[in-house]
Amino acid sequence: MHDLELAIRFFLQLSVILCVCRAVVWVGKRMGQTPVVSEMIAGVLLGPSLFGLVAPHVQSWIFPKVLTTVVDGTTVTIPHPSMSILYVVSQLGLVLYMFLIGLEFDLSRLVHKGKAAALVSASGILAPVLLGGMLGYYLHGSSDSFTTNVSPWNAAFFLGASMAITAFPMLARILFESGMARTSMGTLALAAAAFDDGFAWCLLAIVLATYQNDSLIAIRAVGGGALFAILVLTVGARLFNRLETWRQKTGEFTPNMMIAAMTLLMLGAWCTDALGIYAVFGAFVVGAAMPKGQLSADIQANSHMLVTYLMLPLFFVYSGLNTRLELVNTPQLAMLTVLIIIVAIVSKGVACTIAARCAGESWPDATKIGTLMNARGLIELIILNIGLQAGVITRPCSP
Amino acid sequence: MHDLELAIRFFLQLSVILCVCRAVVWVGKRMGQTPVVSEMIAGVLLGPSLFGLVAPHVQSWIFPKVLTTVVDGTTVTIPHPSMSILYVVSQLGLVLYMFLIGLEFDLSRLVHKGKAAALVSASGILAPVLLGGMLGYYLHGSSDSFTTNVSPWNAAFFLGASMAITAFPMLARILFESGMARTSMGTLALAAAAFDDGFAWCLLAIVLATYQNDSLIAIRAVGGGALFAILVLTVGARLFNRLETWRQKTGEFTPNMMIAAMTLLMLGAWCTDALGIYAVFGAFVVGAAMPKGQLSADIQANSHMLVTYLMLPLFFVYSGLNTRLELVNTPQLAMLTVLIIIVAIVSKGVACTIAARCAGESWPDATKIGTLMNARGLIELIILNIGLQAGVITRPCSP
Repeated sequence: MHDLELAIRFFLQLSVILCVCRAVVWVGKRMGQTPVVSEMIAGVLLGPSLFGLVAPHVQSWIFPKVLTTVVDGTTVTIPHPSMSILYVVSQLGLVLYMFLIGLEFDLSRLVHKGKAAALVSASGILAPVLLGGMLGYYLHGSSDSFTTNVSPWNAAFFLGASMAITAFPMLARILFESGMARTSMGTLALAAAAFDDGFAWCLLAIVLATYQNDSLIAIRAVGGGALFAILVLTVGARLFNRLETWRQKTGEFTPNMMIAAMTLLMLGAWCTDALGIYAVFGAFVVGAAMPKGQLSADIQANSHMLVTYLMLPLFFVYSGLNTRLELVNTPQLAMLTVLIIIVAIVSKGVACTIAARCAGESWPDATKIGTLMNARGLIELIILNIGLQAGVITRPCSP
Repeated sequence: MHDLELAIRFFLQLSVILCVCRAVVWVGKRMGQTPVVSEMIAGVLLGPSLFGLVAPHVQSWIFPKVLTTVVDGTTVTIPHPSMSILYVVSQLGLVLYMFLIGLEFDLSRLVHKGKAAALVSASGILAPVLLGGMLGYYLHGSSDSFTTNVSPWNAAFFLGASMAITAFPMLARILFESGMARTSMGTLALAAAAFDDGFAWCLLAIVLATYQNDSLIAIRAVGGGALFAILVLTVGARLFNRLETWRQKTGEFTPNMMIAAMTLLMLGAWCTDALGIYAVFGAFVVGAAMPKGQLSADIQANSHMLVTYLMLPLFFVYSGLNTRLELVNTPQLAMLTVLIIIVAIVSKGVACTIAARCAGESWPDATKIGTLMNARGLIELIILNIGLQAGVITRPCSP
């Protein structure tokens, strides 16, 4: 497979994804659905569950999973680089998007919402870890879910952490699309989700460290993550303030300012990804550390269209492309799926709603907050992949 | 190699590339060099010729070429997906950039320059094909250059076409950076280069068709390319005019307009790439077909910073990364290299200068046009790869 052919296929994939997304978003809008959910549905439609059933050859030509190639005279089958390319470009789009969301994030809007944010955040961690943990503890013997050598406690914490993680990009996109990103409620949801996510990724690292008997994983994630956040919000913020002063003195937005911001962003994404707390978190923190001034407005004006409408759809479509609904093929698995969904919604959505209400929000507002905190998406797939790779959970067999 | 690890490496590569590019551009500026040349130099510095010599392990960790993996129990070495990812992302950046250049391209500026454009374009094809062809004819027996079963005529046309192709992205970037893109001279150079490139890609397709005894290659490139250009400049242009009317009626730049433009762009890039006349050409034609109105101004304002300063450097660095200066390791090869460079400069640069002067341009302007038409870069590497793949030319042995 030559690089030129990979590029040709990539442009075809992008064309197909943009067309199908637009069609599904158009239909979805008439049914009251937000674009981001429609894009995920577009991904499922383009994946093995529909397009792959109707036209398997065309589907596997446009989105090939494996590549049969000859290496040193023997024919081998390897994962197709095409899907890796789609994944990495979608990650680039995601990191840029989370950075833009961070640029919109202004803690000062939380002045009178401190208590609510703290309560929502705490219940958004405690309830999922508790309820998800109980489910994990109960499921740990089942060969459909966990490998046999996983201890009940590891199973409990793995499922608990998975349920505690918000689909931060999805939440952010919904807030942005509904115009709530700059409201106090949107800021509250983002702050609580950011905190919960940081915590849950650290919990996940501890589970992996215990299971693989390698404490370095946990130290790197917890210690490194904390150090990263502190450094970016102190030294980084000071650096960004200088950039902003430079921008105001110059009176125009120059390439060097853009390059400086992008370099810091890419370093932040790399750093958090390498530490095991995921680039989404790093990109958001870097964006949040920038002063809400002229420079951040310039960067947003200069990139949000391209990022949001060309690159980001790849991310939401990618998760759908990897969903195989047909694997839920026994009554037991269907029951289990429903049970997990119920526990996930109750532990995160309902718990956060109640917490927000207790903190003095009205019922409608509290419900909105709970619903936002319950956003789920590709982040859960990433955790699944980590679990599969580490051998914590089992892969369902193909039918 | 899991996708998550590929994403981590990609963010690291981007950070390194952005940092090194900035440093080299800073030094280059003080030596009177344009950013685009500095970025190519940055690529050479990051590649095997310097970074790889000084710190081979670090270099091959950041920019790995091969991946050793276990497939079905046997250990195999395959090309590393990381370099393919870098290539495809750089192509995405390039396509977006060429589209933006197309948006700036306005044929009406050529009203009094028609004769000059035609003369420069014609000599920019004829001289390289003639002089390059003679060199190719002379070299065809040498095992350092062509495979033994290549006919002298095929060798002649292959080298002729290679020398006729302008590095269109490089030319465009220099025009843009020097503020010449919207001048009549810039428009002349772009028009002549676009025409020459289209012609040379077709010539190359004919060489490949003759060599591989497959006339479909030539029919697809020549017929398909012509059909593409006609369709985009008629039906496509009408569609774009509607988009522009929509923009003016709505009074604002909406996501749907951006998505429509991007979808058409990606389809154009895929189409020309698949036809064998390269995505650069398709992206430029799609951009050129758009009316020079509000919508094209909106798209430029909304994306040129991100495209030019985050994504495009990847393209210029990539070409440097693949340059191995140490392969020119015998006096004969060094002589041959110098000879090819001289023929390339004389056939394209000098010929176009004389043509522009004959068309009535002043000597300084004619020299500028000749120099611009002589821009060379990654496009030549792509031709080399096509030649290698088809078995027309030989790969120099590693020392």
